Amino acid sequence: MSDTEAPAAVASLPTVLGALQDPIRLEMVRRLGEAGEPMRCSALYDTISKSTAAHHFKILRESGITARETVDGQTWVRLRTEEVGAALPGLLDAVLAAANRTKE
Amino acid sequence: MSDTEAPAAVASLPTVLGALQDPIRLEMVRRLGEAGEPMRCSALYDTISKSTAAHHFKILRESGITARETVDGQTWVRLRTEEVGAALPGLLDAVLAAANRTKE
Repeated sequence: MSDTEAPAAVASLPTVLGALQDPIRLEMVRRLGEAGEPMRCSALYDTISKSTAAHHFKILRESGITARETVDGQTWVRLRTEEVGAALPGLLDAVLAAANRTKE
Repeated sequence: MSDTEAPAAVASLPTVLGALQDPIRLEMVRRLGEAGEPMRCSALYDTISKSTAAHHFKILRESGITARETVDGQTWVRLRTEEVGAALPGLLDAVLAAANRTKE
């Protein structure tokens, strides 16, 4: 059983940049970009509490960068690559590339 | 007589995104991108005070996005297109394109 909530529109450029400028959220997005598929929430962070992570997931979701999907009672996070790419062409690609270079 | 201060290195991705996520700074950068050449500080903002503008210029400069140049006692701001492009390929292009689309 799959339950996908109605996704937010991709937010304005300042809001999207604001969502991405936080190192924890940037790492969440980087991992999603690397995976190329939805991931479990818990796979997207290491050293922060679950409630702190929930705060960051909310900001990503409200900016339209990610969507939450519930499959068989389990929550997954999906990077909205196409939607963000359509709203802000090239931005996510450039951010992911730079984030991965930093990670190397 | 030209006096160009030693430019900062382009900052980390989170810092650069943090500098760009503010609407006032984004508009400063957008105008510089459109002009394609250094501009006088006062041409880069409208409705804020000079001291508020100075604060925003400092953040852009410290993140390595802009440089301040003094020519004959007058201060100009230059967008460091090449330096940012080398450090974070595609990012500034994507941001400028999106900012200009919003402006249309």
